[in-house]
Amino acid sequence: MSVKEKLFKKLEEKESKMIEIRRHLHEYPELSFKEEKTAQFIEDFYKDKDVKVTTNVGNGYGIITEIKGKNEGKTIGLRADFDALPVTEEADVPFKSKNEGVMHACGHDAHTAYILILAESLYELRDEWNGTIKIIHQHAEEVPPGGAKSIVESGILDDLDEVYGAHVFPMFDTGVIQFATGNAMAGCSNFDLVIQGSGGHGGLPHKTRDALVAASYFITNIQTIVSRNMNPLDMTVISITSLEDATGGYNVVQDKVTLRGTVRYLQEENKEFVYERFKDMVKGLEVAFDVECDLNYDFHFPVLYNHPEESEYVRELLKNSIGDYLTDVQVTEPLTGSEDFAYYLQKAPGTYINVGAKPEGVEVAYPNHHPKFEINEQALLICAKSIGEITVKRLEV
Amino acid sequence: MSVKEKLFKKLEEKESKMIEIRRHLHEYPELSFKEEKTAQFIEDFYKDKDVKVTTNVGNGYGIITEIKGKNEGKTIGLRADFDALPVTEEADVPFKSKNEGVMHACGHDAHTAYILILAESLYELRDEWNGTIKIIHQHAEEVPPGGAKSIVESGILDDLDEVYGAHVFPMFDTGVIQFATGNAMAGCSNFDLVIQGSGGHGGLPHKTRDALVAASYFITNIQTIVSRNMNPLDMTVISITSLEDATGGYNVVQDKVTLRGTVRYLQEENKEFVYERFKDMVKGLEVAFDVECDLNYDFHFPVLYNHPEESEYVRELLKNSIGDYLTDVQVTEPLTGSEDFAYYLQKAPGTYINVGAKPEGVEVAYPNHHPKFEINEQALLICAKSIGEITVKRLEV
Amino acid sequence: MSVKEKLFKKLEEKESKMIEIRRHLHEYPELSFKEEKTAQFIEDFYKDKDVKVTTNVGNGYGIITEIKGKNEGKTIGLRADFDALPVTEEADVPFKSKNEGVMHACGHDAHTAYILILAESLYELRDEWNGTIKIIHQHAEEVPPGGAKSIVESGILDDLDEVYGAHVFPMFDTGVIQFATGNAMAGCSNFDLVIQGSGGHGGLPHKTRDALVAASYFITNIQTIVSRNMNPLDMTVISITSLEDATGGYNVVQDKVTLRGTVRYLQEENKEFVYERFKDMVKGLEVAFDVECDLNYDFHFPVLYNHPEESEYVRELLKNSIGDYLTDVQVTEPLTGSEDFAYYLQKAPGTYINVGAKPEGVEVAYPNHHPKFEINEQALLICAKSIGEITVKRLEV
Amino acid sequence: MSVKEKLFKKLEEKESKMIEIRRHLHEYPELSFKEEKTAQFIEDFYKDKDVKVTTNVGNGYGIITEIKGKNEGKTIGLRADFDALPVTEEADVPFKSKNEGVMHACGHDAHTAYILILAESLYELRDEWNGTIKIIHQHAEEVPPGGAKSIVESGILDDLDEVYGAHVFPMFDTGVIQFATGNAMAGCSNFDLVIQGSGGHGGLPHKTRDALVAASYFITNIQTIVSRNMNPLDMTVISITSLEDATGGYNVVQDKVTLRGTVRYLQEENKEFVYERFKDMVKGLEVAFDVECDLNYDFHFPVLYNHPEESEYVRELLKNSIGDYLTDVQVTEPLTGSEDFAYYLQKAPGTYINVGAKPEGVEVAYPNHHPKFEINEQALLICAKSIGEITVKRLEV
Repeated sequence: MSVKEKLFKKLEEKESKMIEIRRHLHEYPELSFKEEKTAQFIEDFYKDKDVKVTTNVGNGYGIITEIKGKNEGKTIGLRADFDALPVTEEADVPFKSKNEGVMHACGHDAHTAYILILAESLYELRDEWNGTIKIIHQHAEEVPPGGAKSIVESGILDDLDEVYGAHVFPMFDTGVIQFATGNAMAGCSNFDLVIQGSGGHGGLPHKTRDALVAASYFITNIQTIVSRNMNPLDMTVISITSLEDATGGYNVVQDKVTLRGTVRYLQEENKEFVYERFKDMVKGLEVAFDVECDLNYDFHFPVLYNHPEESEYVRELLKNSIGDYLTDVQVTEPLTGSEDFAYYLQKAPGTYINVGAKPEGVEVAYPNHHPKFEINEQALLICAKSIGEITVKRLEV
Repeated sequence: MSVKEKLFKKLEEKESKMIEIRRHLHEYPELSFKEEKTAQFIEDFYKDKDVKVTTNVGNGYGIITEIKGKNEGKTIGLRADFDALPVTEEADVPFKSKNEGVMHACGHDAHTAYILILAESLYELRDEWNGTIKIIHQHAEEVPPGGAKSIVESGILDDLDEVYGAHVFPMFDTGVIQFATGNAMAGCSNFDLVIQGSGGHGGLPHKTRDALVAASYFITNIQTIVSRNMNPLDMTVISITSLEDATGGYNVVQDKVTLRGTVRYLQEENKEFVYERFKDMVKGLEVAFDVECDLNYDFHFPVLYNHPEESEYVRELLKNSIGDYLTDVQVTEPLTGSEDFAYYLQKAPGTYINVGAKPEGVEVAYPNHHPKFEINEQALLICAKSIGEITVKRLEV
Repeated sequence: MSVKEKLFKKLEEKESKMIEIRRHLHEYPELSFKEEKTAQFIEDFYKDKDVKVTTNVGNGYGIITEIKGKNEGKTIGLRADFDALPVTEEADVPFKSKNEGVMHACGHDAHTAYILILAESLYELRDEWNGTIKIIHQHAEEVPPGGAKSIVESGILDDLDEVYGAHVFPMFDTGVIQFATGNAMAGCSNFDLVIQGSGGHGGLPHKTRDALVAASYFITNIQTIVSRNMNPLDMTVISITSLEDATGGYNVVQDKVTLRGTVRYLQEENKEFVYERFKDMVKGLEVAFDVECDLNYDFHFPVLYNHPEESEYVRELLKNSIGDYLTDVQVTEPLTGSEDFAYYLQKAPGTYINVGAKPEGVEVAYPNHHPKFEINEQALLICAKSIGEITVKRLEV
Repeated sequence: MSVKEKLFKKLEEKESKMIEIRRHLHEYPELSFKEEKTAQFIEDFYKDKDVKVTTNVGNGYGIITEIKGKNEGKTIGLRADFDALPVTEEADVPFKSKNEGVMHACGHDAHTAYILILAESLYELRDEWNGTIKIIHQHAEEVPPGGAKSIVESGILDDLDEVYGAHVFPMFDTGVIQFATGNAMAGCSNFDLVIQGSGGHGGLPHKTRDALVAASYFITNIQTIVSRNMNPLDMTVISITSLEDATGGYNVVQDKVTLRGTVRYLQEENKEFVYERFKDMVKGLEVAFDVECDLNYDFHFPVLYNHPEESEYVRELLKNSIGDYLTDVQVTEPLTGSEDFAYYLQKAPGTYINVGAKPEGVEVAYPNHHPKFEINEQALLICAKSIGEITVKRLEV
């Protein structure tokens, strides 16, 4: 029996345990940066195992578990995140969240469940592979600045040769694995822009400096960043998602307006460029409309780059499992969503894969972050097998 | 002694009673359309007098008191409003409002106090003048649709030959009377515009129809109504004073935005014209930006037109009192504020005058509607004398 | 016989001479700053008269003729301009322009003809009035910077006590005189704005800085100067009248665009204010759209201010001639056109009047500056009588 | 010797003839749809060969030459275009254009030269391959509607199984071949938009319907098509490249403005979508700004789609020649330029390749369409060999 066959056998045997762990975590979700009990649960899981567990890594409850193989070899990181969302669960499941207003609505419970069982299995088979596996139990993926950046910066992953991770998506069929190669998920910057004019009577505009009019012109002006300043072959979005004023009356000109929004980009070199254009647009507005602006512009997660060589390798490898535990492996267009897994891929080559988890009998599933979000729990075994077979292949004796 | 002299003597004797009434009303202010006790107070005032009092006139507590003179003659209307504002008084006066959150912050208490005493005095002198005086005690001036329109429409003023009124203003000196001739105060239309698009993820703009972007373009587009479509010699203002969205996040494109604002105009013929252009701008937006709009556009008070002949007469008459109870009579530019006295001036010729009421020793007074609004109570006698002398002169035997 | 009667008798006798002069000048029109022969004609007219004639006044062919009355007294200026326009005459008159491409299409021939005969008549009656009359034969009214400014600056009018002038308009009835009081004609600033970006392929916008897009946003932005920054009771217009690019292709993004236009205002204090806002809008554009701008902004003729006291006097005086040589005297709204007579009214009080000159039997006349412009020649006598009677009344013995 | 080796030997022997033909054509360039002599030259070339030559194919001088191989087999099209550009040559070459104002500034002379020699060589080797080769000598590639569409529509290529073509580019190194797979070159729509308002005096905006202001708002509005309506992962450009008005004065508001521009897209399904949005923007403008619009919007060349399977095959094949006559084969990003070769690829699968032709010793070469455009003539043999080896491989016996 090959090591892969042995691994798959173990994973199949432990499938019910995997699901049990997932349901336990699902019942006790914790918000980003507050995942104290979840972290304890993970730490406890490794108690009797001869592995090195480092806790409180980075800016939160991050845990790195180091498993050594037979001989020296490469170091591979496997990451699963474990924070939950401020969502009140509406899914009709027996293991519904018991923490009011908090929900594992993005499947991180599933991620952690499969990775623990995979880690255990790989540990049990540690004589069958070489090198080191670092299980990256990451806190706080959902809330900027996220946990990944600080874990990387802690230095604990400095010896990483490759890194892999998986995310469950109920939006496509269980059995299917998808990922884009190269720039695969968008980088993201968020901003707040306060435009300060001066208010006054609606019938006396010349005694005001109308912040709402200035804001409107700003919104029309910045459309040109995407439409004229960016390479049309690149992906760039600027969405103004909120305009806040002292809403209410018919008769008082606004003195202050706050805009909020997000920038998405797929070419890391555009991060700064958009910021520069945005800043210039703000400066121009101040001069042209005689307002004072206060811009708070944050670079969040970078572009997630699936390294072409590793991703091609993953694709070829997983394709062989079509007909076995997979029905298809698809190379897709990039996603405009963001993921702080991007930081690991800046540290070491690797691939982040999306694992189909559509519940059975459902036509269109509720998407991630929805109060009725549900997954097909068969996806856990698929995550474990796919990440598992990649790992043992790359650490082959 | 002329009738004017007799009238002034009476008014001087009753000045303290005038102030007493004003302070009483000030302590018990009532909101527009809810002035039940104030109306009762007014009705009671006339109890023992041989005058015709009609109550509940128009769409609220309006009261018309009819005083007959010696012989047949012209019918002259004198109007004073009596509603208060939803303002919490912060003025430091011994007769501070006892009705929490309601305040006579626009001086309607002073208007009613002086007119009652003036009415009483004219009643006592009814053998000295001809014709009919109709005292128009008007409810609800502050809140559209106001009381004036419905009072006029009731028909009770159908025989009006002329109409006069006064408003106190602490912003200029006590002793000064101001008014513009012709178009003197702006007409006003208010609007709500709901722009309905469809929301979605900030990184997927093509799956949304962005209501906030549409609203911004709308705001920039309508600037051209004032800047290009209106006669530049006319006064027109369009102020968007509020933009309401489902404010908050960085990541969700708005599906619905509500704009509110006001239109001010000084040429009655522009009322419809602006509305037509506005509607076309809305229709154009719907087509261009693929949104659905729901426009609620109300014509409020019309342009207040001080009839030139009567106003010239008033100016000449009052100028003679400079050095007596007045220090100056000034013909000014129009105001961009609105007043439903405009409806009476559509019914009959006349003039609406502004009476200075700046408190003594004050450099810059708090304006009307301010929580610290205060007036110089000498203005009450000035109101009574000026409106009184106009009346007896026009109804001269 | 009063001096006015004597003057009117003389003017009536000389009417045919007036018309003869006008037709002569009409045949030989000369462009602004090139009115050499016209100036010679005027100079020759005074040859045998005992008056002081100063030629080449100001920045061109300006002529000041000084006529002394009986005794010392006030000094009154009477102005008539004498330049023509670059228009090819299409009017079907026997005295059609003989100078190809040049036409007295604004009636300055009529102005000069009546003023010469009026001057001669007043000269002949010089024992009947006191003081000094300065006939201001002005060159170059049609082309900025005009002649008036330089004539005033020459100092030759420093002793002026009052100043009057008249302009013929075929747009309203012969026999009618119109003028506004106070701010009567608009001040004017013209501008050229070069917006320099960088061009390139239509399919590669990010390699260009699109000057046409920048220009478009600029045009939308500046609408707010009129719509939001100006007092809505003031008259202000900003018209962009020309956009010049390297027109032609479908495929090359513009690197340079030139905007031209005009600003009209009726409150002299707004002249600088609009300029400041305009400059800020330009600066804001440079920063926001990464373009370089070159703004050439010229203050042209100021607001023409008809002094209220003198204008009221003129109105009262001329009203007495209704039924005689006038049919009506009307006080109108201001005009949005400009006139460098404004400079004289900055030097001395007075009034500029508009004299109806609609040809007989015509429903709608061709306006000033039109190739088919024609006037009713009866207007010459009306000009002479009205300006004449004002003059002798103000210089009454 | 393999057929490829035999073919290469022939091509090498005929290289000087290839260059000679190219120089001849270069001296006698003819504009699109007017390539009479060039077509005759091509026809003459085949005179003594046993091939079927069809002339006047499509909407111009198109020529299809049919060469039959040994046995039945696939039909492969090889296309070379032969029209020149309205450019006055400034390149310093001995074979400079002798047709004033016309120049082979896009290398179509090279295309035709290599294809004739390749056709001749393949003809001579016709016993060594199976099937049919159709040489597509295409007229009018440079001017819409181009020649390709009509050639395809003529039906003469209905039996095509595959199609290939090459274009020379001096912008990258001789020896390098580049192409994108899938959507490889942009589709293109051009438009003219006449915006008709009504003109008038710059000081009387309300008497005009300002076409230039409307045009400016239109330009700002349509930015949102790219920035908000298109999938940000798709490539879309809308460039307004020209605004034409009756340029000149400071004082007359424009009554009519004409916009011109181009739309580029890389997803064929966006062709109609952009058009629909554009039309709606125009309709919205008409309503909002009270103007009449006349839109002329033409779909030009579609997206050029390099079929992935054939392109992968071509890449693999040509990679084997690296070190031989090629230095590199690169898969690139798409180009935003357009090519009517796209029509052939809608008819049959295949690949359009770009062949480096940078002149020796040059750092940055003049691009295609430049008056100083020059190529390295070694690129002709490279074109012939690459297209040749593809052909014989696909038609292998």
